[in-house]
Amino acid sequence: MSEQLRPKPPYDRSRRVSRRRFLGVLGAAASLPAASALLGSCNALQRKETPKLGASAEEIIKQRQLTPEDVTAALMTYMPSGKYDEYLMFSSTGHGGQVLVHGLPSMRLLKVIAVFTPEPWQGYGYGGSPNRVLEGGSFRGRPLTWADTHHPALSETNGEYDGQFLFINDKANGRVAVIDLRDFETKQIVKNPLLVNEHGGCFVTPNTEYVLEADQYPVPLGGEYAPLNQYKEKYRGVLTFWKFDRQQGRIVPEESFAIETPPYWHDLADAGKGPSEGWAFWNSINTELAVPGILEGRPAMEMATTQRDMDYLHVVNWRKAEQVVAAGKYEEVQGFKLIRIETAVEEGLLYLIPEPKSPHGVDVTPRGDYIVVAGKLDPHVTVYSFEKIQQAIAAGQFDHDEYGIPILPFEQCLEAQVELGLGPLHTQFDDQGYAYTSLFLDSAVARWALGKPYREDGWKLVEKLPVHYNIGHLAAVEGDTAKPAGTFLVAHNKWSVDRFSLLGPLLPQNAQLIDIGPDRPMRLLYDSPIGIGEPHYAQIIKAERIKAWDVYPEVGWNPETQSVDPNAVLKVGEERIERRGKTVEIWGVLLRSQIRPDVVEVEEGDEVIWHLTNIERAKDATHGFALGGYNINLSLEPGETQTLRFVADMPGTFPFYCTEFCSALHLEMMGYFLVKPKR
Amino acid sequence: MSEQLRPKPPYDRSRRVSRRRFLGVLGAAASLPAASALLGSCNALQRKETPKLGASAEEIIKQRQLTPEDVTAALMTYMPSGKYDEYLMFSSTGHGGQVLVHGLPSMRLLKVIAVFTPEPWQGYGYGGSPNRVLEGGSFRGRPLTWADTHHPALSETNGEYDGQFLFINDKANGRVAVIDLRDFETKQIVKNPLLVNEHGGCFVTPNTEYVLEADQYPVPLGGEYAPLNQYKEKYRGVLTFWKFDRQQGRIVPEESFAIETPPYWHDLADAGKGPSEGWAFWNSINTELAVPGILEGRPAMEMATTQRDMDYLHVVNWRKAEQVVAAGKYEEVQGFKLIRIETAVEEGLLYLIPEPKSPHGVDVTPRGDYIVVAGKLDPHVTVYSFEKIQQAIAAGQFDHDEYGIPILPFEQCLEAQVELGLGPLHTQFDDQGYAYTSLFLDSAVARWALGKPYREDGWKLVEKLPVHYNIGHLAAVEGDTAKPAGTFLVAHNKWSVDRFSLLGPLLPQNAQLIDIGPDRPMRLLYDSPIGIGEPHYAQIIKAERIKAWDVYPEVGWNPETQSVDPNAVLKVGEERIERRGKTVEIWGVLLRSQIRPDVVEVEEGDEVIWHLTNIERAKDATHGFALGGYNINLSLEPGETQTLRFVADMPGTFPFYCTEFCSALHLEMMGYFLVKPKR
Repeated sequence: MSEQLRPKPPYDRSRRVSRRRFLGVLGAAASLPAASALLGSCNALQRKETPKLGASAEEIIKQRQLTPEDVTAALMTYMPSGKYDEYLMFSSTGHGGQVLVHGLPSMRLLKVIAVFTPEPWQGYGYGGSPNRVLEGGSFRGRPLTWADTHHPALSETNGEYDGQFLFINDKANGRVAVIDLRDFETKQIVKNPLLVNEHGGCFVTPNTEYVLEADQYPVPLGGEYAPLNQYKEKYRGVLTFWKFDRQQGRIVPEESFAIETPPYWHDLADAGKGPSEGWAFWNSINTELAVPGILEGRPAMEMATTQRDMDYLHVVNWRKAEQVVAAGKYEEVQGFKLIRIETAVEEGLLYLIPEPKSPHGVDVTPRGDYIVVAGKLDPHVTVYSFEKIQQAIAAGQFDHDEYGIPILPFEQCLEAQVELGLGPLHTQFDDQGYAYTSLFLDSAVARWALGKPYREDGWKLVEKLPVHYNIGHLAAVEGDTAKPAGTFLVAHNKWSVDRFSLLGPLLPQNAQLIDIGPDRPMRLLYDSPIGIGEPHYAQIIKAERIKAWDVYPEVGWNPETQSVDPNAVLKVGEERIERRGKTVEIWGVLLRSQIRPDVVEVEEGDEVIWHLTNIERAKDATHGFALGGYNINLSLEPGETQTLRFVADMPGTFPFYCTEFCSALHLEMMGYFLVKPKR
Repeated sequence: MSEQLRPKPPYDRSRRVSRRRFLGVLGAAASLPAASALLGSCNALQRKETPKLGASAEEIIKQRQLTPEDVTAALMTYMPSGKYDEYLMFSSTGHGGQVLVHGLPSMRLLKVIAVFTPEPWQGYGYGGSPNRVLEGGSFRGRPLTWADTHHPALSETNGEYDGQFLFINDKANGRVAVIDLRDFETKQIVKNPLLVNEHGGCFVTPNTEYVLEADQYPVPLGGEYAPLNQYKEKYRGVLTFWKFDRQQGRIVPEESFAIETPPYWHDLADAGKGPSEGWAFWNSINTELAVPGILEGRPAMEMATTQRDMDYLHVVNWRKAEQVVAAGKYEEVQGFKLIRIETAVEEGLLYLIPEPKSPHGVDVTPRGDYIVVAGKLDPHVTVYSFEKIQQAIAAGQFDHDEYGIPILPFEQCLEAQVELGLGPLHTQFDDQGYAYTSLFLDSAVARWALGKPYREDGWKLVEKLPVHYNIGHLAAVEGDTAKPAGTFLVAHNKWSVDRFSLLGPLLPQNAQLIDIGPDRPMRLLYDSPIGIGEPHYAQIIKAERIKAWDVYPEVGWNPETQSVDPNAVLKVGEERIERRGKTVEIWGVLLRSQIRPDVVEVEEGDEVIWHLTNIERAKDATHGFALGGYNINLSLEPGETQTLRFVADMPGTFPFYCTEFCSALHLEMMGYFLVKPKR
């Protein structure tokens, strides 16, 4: 790789106010009693002392050597006890396989949502009902216990986040998960049967009719074996439209479909909205159709995939594709509805437009009128007009790629190109007509002006703010919706290098909060270490849009069916144990501070079916249920019922107990599971 | 459970300065130009505007309605970009099974260390070398994939943290893990073969000779089956001393030993130091020897275990126990050296002292002269004098429990009792002679004065600070060592109730940062949500004590052996593939942006041995290695070598790729693993 592409050293901080200058300002102010009163802490003791860290604000500023910028940033981000963050950021954790929820502006990590990776605190994948969700994501019948999550997508209504659901993809294994934001739990994982590896998901259509997902590294359809010298003939790309049933809160694979493409590597995507509603856009790399083979004498992929100056933006009419599927013009492949390339071309569903060079992000502007492509090896963003694309389609003057797909003329679709800097990756928007693009190689965020109808002074760079370091995606508050908020932006930096205390060779990433308030330069507010995975994409929603439950609606609630479970025990005294042959079935309850029944004795080899209901109605009164040795742990939120099934194939004495510190007598909330050995 | 024991409603905030009063202060100050200059952000634009959130500090304070206390707290906790937190807090995650590392005073979560639960971001348990660490923690040969971590213990030298190792226990399955703080990776998990469930660990002796661990819910030794009506005869407690070899960085089970006890439930522990070095202390509950059996007509355990006014503090002379083991006076039980109760009594290793009532924490004062017990159903802390204990032992006037263990007279050992409030749990210390005790039922932290030689005004309550809510453990900076720092304290609150945005029925916990600086009242600074597990105990160390590696010392480093791996490939061009019968062995390298070799073709059923070396030397240049479908993901830090072994039993085409966004051409860092089907 060339020197130019390597990460750059840290920016110098010469833009910051010098300490000397700032202390001068402070010195002048410190002599004023009123200023001291303003800064002084009102509950500091009134006597003379030599504190370690000053008791008053003024002393703290001096001792901690805070600059005026630091003071401003501290005041913008500090969240007093009991006050709520205004925004929630949902981000992927990369190969952590989960979703993170941060509060903004405090940048505090509020919750990790278990999605693809078993997580015992949430009782996710440790014997209880959520096991079935994970099993749904099996790969050819084999369990998977991790994922490479990339792009979370909040459900939308009319192109705005509606706070109901969250979708997220698994690049490593080609899967999509559905999270219900009433209880923040994963409800479904679907495996895409046509591909192994993907990247271009999740993105939703403006009313969440579909969740978009596409391949990254192509394989033969379904992932069967084929040698690499058959790449052009046998390997294929797949643009998938997963049908979402909002009422059921589930993806419906039988009503979903995909469009076959050449084996280009599809990267990011976006759905059209407003005038472009009904269309979807994916960009692609490796339109060179290169395959690896260093030991066989082929060039490395980093060289081979970057030969062409232009790759292809894929332009898809999904409304028409829906009709084509309804008309039966598809094939069933691996049990999935697939529109073949020829059909897509014939029906006018799929077009290509040249796009420079190795693009990453494709982002539709808030009104749905432009499509912004960031080509990571090109210093510009390239802006296409949806209206011009339609005109070019109507004009019908196409080239074709070697698979016969029509290529629209670049110049006819182009609205503008704006030079931003090195390594543009991804773009989001504010409410003032500005766009924000991450620059990976520059380690910076570019603010630039959109043209009409957004701004009169459009299509030009406004300013760049250094970030630390190697920014991948960025996320502005509701910045990829029809109505961006224009308040904060988070830079998801891939490297942190020198930003945090050294904690061994594996460093956290750095999510940096940036003020993008109107009529002032961008300013860096806060460094948030991410030492629990590698966030790629994120979305930031106004917290008020989410109407989560504080406890489950009724006692005995089964979060899988979102209704009362027939096996729930609704009150104390109704718990029982039944034995039928080699099956022992237990109906139990949990409350502060008892697990009832508290003794269960079975014989080695018995099948155990254990229904557990947390009958608490108090907010925060969660109980855990751990069974030592058997690798079992459940988390039962107030009102929740779960069912645990296992075979008691290990004889012995096993304590079970509540794993949530729920009361002063929590340690006494225990019992024994006794497995009598076979004679 | 009685009304008294239920969590209390939030404290009113009447102690805080009213908004009206504060705005009055602000109003006076706002007219002063110097104050405005002090508060104004130096990079705000100089023109008139109507900002959404004010551009200057003063406007921000108004608009965000920050009190003077909030301003002070913001300034004390804000960490400017690139500045490092002064302290690191290691906390357990409860049934999350991991360790968290927070920076103080910013309270930012810097890293999650994978310990007992597989974690794919760190490549822990997904096919690579760390799989062997997890396998070491198997339960009777069965894999375990979670734990209930409670009490992390930093290694010590002369009773101070030395920053070298961290130990942590698994309550659910009776295990202990060792983490090396050079690379922050888990190196070893040992299963205690005598017990199933534990609680009283990890605590280390002052020079880390031993790591202490004891049962919580007793089982027959080794966990064999025995009915509950044989509880007194067959069930046993176990006080374990795991021998630690600092040079090897490993626990040595063969040199470890345990002491048998009656089936009391052992709770927390601490090791003596200074005059009490060579001794260890455990408290206990359920000295009633109650067993569960609600359906069988027995009282619930929360009632049955709280009948007696006094339980037993266990006082153990481990130096003498070491000699007893060396003299061969032990039995081998489940392959582990066990000192029987009779031997322990005969040799004068083990004494009991009455302690009130259902105690949780036992904490030795910094000089090693007192032992503080917090009885959660007693409003006092009870302070024992080590000198008096020794005198009582010498005096020889003992009662005996029903197992023949000598009971020292309570009054003879007692130094003081200090009434603090409801639900005292756990105590730590500062450098001013104050102790800090968590009050679970009061939801408060009590600051109280130790007596001589610490303070003249000793053995009395100084003040209480409300926390939110239901505090379990607390941690002061180096607050359980011989030299506490006396700067900050963190309250680990079990419930958060109304402190954070609602994110479904499972709420985060709340770690609250408290200023305990000298000569001023305690003050609450920051609410830190913990939405990733349930921290119990924590320890806070000065960051400067930890000397972690930024990259591995040499290319080809194997973190398991902490030496260069014989299978490492040290430079590009030396990668290769060898086939021997049904075994395919690959020696590969990773660098920006290639995985070499990039094509590996095998036949279905082949055994694959894949050595991978990250040859980077740049800090932060980690590469991942994911193999889709096969549930494999490794994380290779700069210089690291790992070996992956699996059987290629699934035919097909499987992309592999780097899962860490390492360069602009990271997406091109891929290859294909081709598995040719059997004919």
